Amino acid sequence: MSQPALGSRAQGEDLSLDELHDVWRLLAPEDRLAAFHLVPHDSGEDFFLALSTAEQAALLVTLPAKERRAWLRLLPPDDAADVIQAALPAARQEFLALLDDSTRKEVSALLAYAEDQAGGLMNPRFARLRPEMSVDEAIAYLRRQVRELETAHYIYVLDAEQRLLGVVSFRELFPVPPERTVQEVMHRDVVTAHEHLDQEALGRLFATHRFLAIPIVDDEQHIKGIVTMDDIVDVVQEEATEDIQKIGGMEALDAPYLQIGMGRMVRKRGGWLSALFLGEMLTATAMGYFEAEIARAVVLALFVPLIISSGGNSGSQATTLVIRAMALGEVKIRDWWRVIRRECVAGLTLGSILGTIGVARILLWHGAFGVYGEHYLLVALTVGASLVGVVLWGTLAGSMLPFVLRRLGFDPASASAPFVATLVDVSGLLIYFTTASVILSGTLL
Amino acid sequence: MSQPALGSRAQGEDLSLDELHDVWRLLAPEDRLAAFHLVPHDSGEDFFLALSTAEQAALLVTLPAKERRAWLRLLPPDDAADVIQAALPAARQEFLALLDDSTRKEVSALLAYAEDQAGGLMNPRFARLRPEMSVDEAIAYLRRQVRELETAHYIYVLDAEQRLLGVVSFRELFPVPPERTVQEVMHRDVVTAHEHLDQEALGRLFATHRFLAIPIVDDEQHIKGIVTMDDIVDVVQEEATEDIQKIGGMEALDAPYLQIGMGRMVRKRGGWLSALFLGEMLTATAMGYFEAEIARAVVLALFVPLIISSGGNSGSQATTLVIRAMALGEVKIRDWWRVIRRECVAGLTLGSILGTIGVARILLWHGAFGVYGEHYLLVALTVGASLVGVVLWGTLAGSMLPFVLRRLGFDPASASAPFVATLVDVSGLLIYFTTASVILSGTLL
Repeated sequence: MSQPALGSRAQGEDLSLDELHDVWRLLAPEDRLAAFHLVPHDSGEDFFLALSTAEQAALLVTLPAKERRAWLRLLPPDDAADVIQAALPAARQEFLALLDDSTRKEVSALLAYAEDQAGGLMNPRFARLRPEMSVDEAIAYLRRQVRELETAHYIYVLDAEQRLLGVVSFRELFPVPPERTVQEVMHRDVVTAHEHLDQEALGRLFATHRFLAIPIVDDEQHIKGIVTMDDIVDVVQEEATEDIQKIGGMEALDAPYLQIGMGRMVRKRGGWLSALFLGEMLTATAMGYFEAEIARAVVLALFVPLIISSGGNSGSQATTLVIRAMALGEVKIRDWWRVIRRECVAGLTLGSILGTIGVARILLWHGAFGVYGEHYLLVALTVGASLVGVVLWGTLAGSMLPFVLRRLGFDPASASAPFVATLVDVSGLLIYFTTASVILSGTLL
Repeated sequence: MSQPALGSRAQGEDLSLDELHDVWRLLAPEDRLAAFHLVPHDSGEDFFLALSTAEQAALLVTLPAKERRAWLRLLPPDDAADVIQAALPAARQEFLALLDDSTRKEVSALLAYAEDQAGGLMNPRFARLRPEMSVDEAIAYLRRQVRELETAHYIYVLDAEQRLLGVVSFRELFPVPPERTVQEVMHRDVVTAHEHLDQEALGRLFATHRFLAIPIVDDEQHIKGIVTMDDIVDVVQEEATEDIQKIGGMEALDAPYLQIGMGRMVRKRGGWLSALFLGEMLTATAMGYFEAEIARAVVLALFVPLIISSGGNSGSQATTLVIRAMALGEVKIRDWWRVIRRECVAGLTLGSILGTIGVARILLWHGAFGVYGEHYLLVALTVGASLVGVVLWGTLAGSMLPFVLRRLGFDPASASAPFVATLVDVSGLLIYFTTASVILSGTLL
């Protein structure tokens, strides 16, 4: 999606546009059409352009056929392509048919790209010049182009085969004496992105270079379109939302929380929840394996939730940190050894802190209530030592899982907090009961 | 931070800039200075401008005093202010003294704003016109301004007191007949942001309106500067990183993972981990309360980790969804009742799914290994019913906690997955053992 021209901003002030939006969210789909028709046409345009792609598509479907054409044609080609992509497959051909010929061609070309590739985000319309033009000719030529363009931050200089030769900004062009040529003013070292570049990598390219637009090229440096900074804000938000939802232990919803259908949401959450549940069943198996020990020393069972949750929490911290650092490009696969070293130190320190608190808690409670039997010192030692081991293990497992997933070609964000917690729960039980059998053998066990 | 002029892009191609960056990350601070001096001055400029604020500050400190001035003056005022903010307090006055008088004034004004307010992000330099100028005068006047500006997407029309009257874009101004005046062409309905607006809200304003820049005003509509879209990309990334780290159960690090000092990182993680640990200790208390039941029916202990982790996982999903939807503005405080209704349905459905799997697991295992004693049917019923209750409770608690936190004035993202899991662990034990005592009373208990 792209930025509307200055002329299409809201007529009212901020608040009223927000209010309009708020009302919108609360309306049933059939009432939205009525509300939309109540708004004066000018404000309607602003409102329509500010809607999300999914909402634009939903509204277009409910509009009478003759209105649909006018509203769809209001959108620049990249936004039109997004809307058509968001519509039900059955409606796509019909939508395409509503466009004028040249836009339909542009939109069809855009639809061929995956949504999360540079090509899927680009606008095929941009300001262009030939290198041999004089600055005067160039400005006259640009004045004609500029009205049809959505954005014109940079002007691209192309050869006869549409290969990108250079770039120049309006600001640079205007003060130049009129008889100089474009190729004397232009920059030849242009930062470009390949049409199939993943949108997350494209976002990092924008973050590094801070350009308002980056041209998208094919293998032979033919320019296919431009991606502008405002599209990237959406990408960044979208990728962050996906990662956050995955870290929360579910599939990315791909739709706003209040709008997604209950069936779809339950499927996206239920799948992972069931998978985690199946994994977590191993804890019942592990506990069953130590059933005799528990029967002999019930006191051991009391600390099971405390021990395994500490492993889960420390693992959740570590995996979250590493996933985010990977998404930002701060940590690369080859940094795994540095991460292990850091997490060893962090895990041992954090484990020692929790172990100390745990031991203190048991000694204090025993002193006050005498609840942990004659071997309370050994029990405290078992819990303390297990905490160090479990926290260290949780930290290491949590930090390494994103590396393993990425190495195997999966999204590292799937190493969700609940996933790591489940992994660590089972091994935490093994650590705890093994430590217990070593320390308590001959006394309680 | 802002976008460098086109002229200051990397001399080499993409890859080599990336490589330079990569080497940089691996160098010790003292070696960075040497490496920096090896680079030709032109590339050095690009490289310096592309560094993060923290890295720019760190590099400036190591530079010889006479070089420091030249590099600091390379930065536009908003970036200079960020660098000075990032420097150690002791170095700030010294840095300020290196700037020329007019920039120092601008930078000092910027330093008065909190970093996460609109005022802290803005650039005090922007293109400006008077309303009564003719288009011809305006273009001539702009040509002089434009060289000193970092960005000039929109031109702001101000009265003699610097109050914002309107806005016009280059593209709109150029095709207009030269004798018309600026006020005839300008738009009067300008979207503005208040200087103390929080940066997250400012990000949403950009997302709604899709402008390249938004002017920042004080209470009397005096323009103080502009915030551009490229600053917002940083804000969006930064806010997402903070939320993700909080959801992972720790304080936001505020620094890249591989660069933050170990002591600081352990403090940021250890604080929450210890707090969660103290909360989780209640599980030991709860388990102690049911010690007699466990001693009588050890089989109950086997399913403790399974039950409580299911509550934690479903709570983690719900809280993550709601936190993100709140950050994106999709869910507001007044939506709490809609969320409860949705989560009741989702929780019951998900709980029934897990309950069914749980019952099936117990019946299958008992059929195969005969491990769960004569009352295995009742045990299965206990586990199944508890799972429905625990998952429903986890879902509701997880979805409501962000509302409670926001209502109390805290960041909803603090309702981290581990926080919710801890909350749900204790109550999950109560649900489980209460269910058990109802169903198993007279048989196992």
